[in-house]
Amino acid sequence: MALKIGKGALAPPFMVMDVIAAANARQAALPPGDPHVIRMEVGQPGTGAPTGAVAAAQAALRSGHPLGYTEAFGLRSLRERIAAHVRAWYRLDLPIERIAVTVGASGAFPLAFLAAFDRGDRIALAAPFYPPYVNILTALGMTPVILEAGPDTRFQPSVAMLEALDPPPDGLIVASPCNPVGTMLHRDELAAIAAWCDANGVRLISDEIYHGLNYDSPIASAAEFSDSAVVVNSFSKQFPNHDQNVGLATAAAFSPNAVVIGSFSKYFSMTGWRVGWMVLPDDLIRPVECLAQNMFISAPHLSQIAAEAAFDCEAELQANVARYRRSRDLLLKGLPDAGFSRLSPAEGAFYLWADVSDRTNDSKAFCARMLNEAGVAVSPGVDFDRARGNLFVRFSYCGPEPDMAEAAERLKKWR
Amino acid sequence: MALKIGKGALAPPFMVMDVIAAANARQAALPPGDPHVIRMEVGQPGTGAPTGAVAAAQAALRSGHPLGYTEAFGLRSLRERIAAHVRAWYRLDLPIERIAVTVGASGAFPLAFLAAFDRGDRIALAAPFYPPYVNILTALGMTPVILEAGPDTRFQPSVAMLEALDPPPDGLIVASPCNPVGTMLHRDELAAIAAWCDANGVRLISDEIYHGLNYDSPIASAAEFSDSAVVVNSFSKQFPNHDQNVGLATAAAFSPNAVVIGSFSKYFSMTGWRVGWMVLPDDLIRPVECLAQNMFISAPHLSQIAAEAAFDCEAELQANVARYRRSRDLLLKGLPDAGFSRLSPAEGAFYLWADVSDRTNDSKAFCARMLNEAGVAVSPGVDFDRARGNLFVRFSYCGPEPDMAEAAERLKKWR
Repeated sequence: MALKIGKGALAPPFMVMDVIAAANARQAALPPGDPHVIRMEVGQPGTGAPTGAVAAAQAALRSGHPLGYTEAFGLRSLRERIAAHVRAWYRLDLPIERIAVTVGASGAFPLAFLAAFDRGDRIALAAPFYPPYVNILTALGMTPVILEAGPDTRFQPSVAMLEALDPPPDGLIVASPCNPVGTMLHRDELAAIAAWCDANGVRLISDEIYHGLNYDSPIASAAEFSDSAVVVNSFSKQFPNHDQNVGLATAAAFSPNAVVIGSFSKYFSMTGWRVGWMVLPDDLIRPVECLAQNMFISAPHLSQIAAEAAFDCEAELQANVARYRRSRDLLLKGLPDAGFSRLSPAEGAFYLWADVSDRTNDSKAFCARMLNEAGVAVSPGVDFDRARGNLFVRFSYCGPEPDMAEAAERLKKWR
Repeated sequence: MALKIGKGALAPPFMVMDVIAAANARQAALPPGDPHVIRMEVGQPGTGAPTGAVAAAQAALRSGHPLGYTEAFGLRSLRERIAAHVRAWYRLDLPIERIAVTVGASGAFPLAFLAAFDRGDRIALAAPFYPPYVNILTALGMTPVILEAGPDTRFQPSVAMLEALDPPPDGLIVASPCNPVGTMLHRDELAAIAAWCDANGVRLISDEIYHGLNYDSPIASAAEFSDSAVVVNSFSKQFPNHDQNVGLATAAAFSPNAVVIGSFSKYFSMTGWRVGWMVLPDDLIRPVECLAQNMFISAPHLSQIAAEAAFDCEAELQANVARYRRSRDLLLKGLPDAGFSRLSPAEGAFYLWADVSDRTNDSKAFCARMLNEAGVAVSPGVDFDRARGNLFVRFSYCGPEPDMAEAAERLKKWR
């Protein structure tokens, strides 16, 4: 007798995974000596964890540390360090009770959604969006409400879009810098959205996992970040124009009710270690803790030790940021010559969102041709925007710098 | 304006975590020189990962391996190794497509539940149970159907209990060896339950995370497990009486529809590394893969490398099993003299379930007194059985061997 399958099983794949598989297959099929496939489809840094994080993991392994479960909210020392990080980057003093270590940012989403929302609740978010938001909400029986955002708001949501919803949604997810577009909510915009949410009883979930990868704000030289004391204490030196800084606004500064989600995967370059964090509003601390005890027990112990040490690696991390910035500048210059002239503002993360409606109305086929003919792997927009994604592609520039230069050249020839 | 909290936020805590905190506090409050608190409340081995697993992690870190995301279902080499393990332990040949690496067994439960069931579905399980089953089901809007099991079925579910449900449930969770009781479903019992589930369209979820920690089956000497070739190939040598072996029946052998959940946390002694696996039925492979891509991206990469190497550490792991067996024998002998004579059969895992109804009808207060007066931390049954748990306590014997001997002595004096 065949068994039924749950509705949760209808979650679509996170399609970038399939694009990665296609690029792997293409690379494997290339004759030896042929130029390699340039990987601009991946959403993870090509660099590994910073050396200090790796060294801390090595030291823990050498010490014979048993590495059992940690408390559900993580090692106290790591939570304290995250609180210091929040203080340094945002001038925001939070009790460590509000900080929870999670199994990547991915592990934070189900906790936030289950704690804050009920089945049937309507959660707004702008399209284009990170597909798992919608897929997780749907799997949990919640209803995503898509706000179609365009170039006029840099593909970000706005208070006007929220005002147009009747009734107001139960929640709102924002992401800044965002995947796939690479744009940001500026300080005043985020503040206005947070205030609107509070005034309307709407729970704000702010995905801030790309913080630190923001390019329109002043980034101090790597030399200024040579040790942790600097990071924790010399805020004004790092970010002398912070109050005007569009890059480092956190929703936690604007609303006591917001849930903020952070990660060690992007700026800290530790994807496969699976560590993230949440800044929780007071009313969700205990609910999220109970859910986390039941659903995760704890985040990986060794990864937590490594993550704590990553805060001492600013020089290396800032060198990564400088590299992303150079790759970004190079692509902003080179891609228009290759026929990609309608690019979203590259404010942060490591993505460029390109309107390719003048070249195709089938971005999936377009990307497949680009992979096979030019040897450049890029993600079609369909996964990120179900209505208009056929007209967009996402370039990721977190790969090796020479590859980014080479990509622009290949695409010029392919044009 | 105060915001509402989701119904998912009503998940109760996993109470053992609170008992652990109380034991920590008691230990911290003891004057220097006082005998330490004996920890019998924890559900994790006191040992760390086997040395070969730690060495593999160290080698990966030394190599500069970038440790990015793996595929959602894990490293292919690890999946192959798990398939070999299933072949060795159960004489069962599975394609690796049916094997998914997960973020601990904890990460497997939401994937299994969301893929197999819908909101409102009724999922049966025996009480006493591992509390997160019920708490996760409830958080996901599913309805646990509790089968009150007693000494007559060794606190395990039976076909008779399932037959008594009208209508039949949508799913059934079994655990063998089980937490908190430490009893097992014997081969014929598990086969009968699996057949009943298939005949009645009931999805069977089989928690087999304590496999390998089973004491009524013949355990080969440590010397026989000195390398992986032995483990993979010399099945008949390891388990000469396998067909009569109650210890190593897997639901996957009895039903093509069952979901089996395994873990590196218990037998492999790698709790804080957060790696488990699922054996999936064909119809749930792609649904679970899509859910995993969205909800987890992947299990921790370094932990997967370490887990693969753990299969080469049989000598060390079997030495752990021998130690648990000695502690078990010692407690089975010592606890009755200390007034705990109604113990469940200690067939597996590292738990003893004691009926203390002759001494208290408030196991929580009883455990608090035991901690404060005898310095022995034990879990009250209330978390595992909401109806009868006030009359039971769970002893865990995975701690250091001398502590287990000392515990029996202290409890004799405390009686």
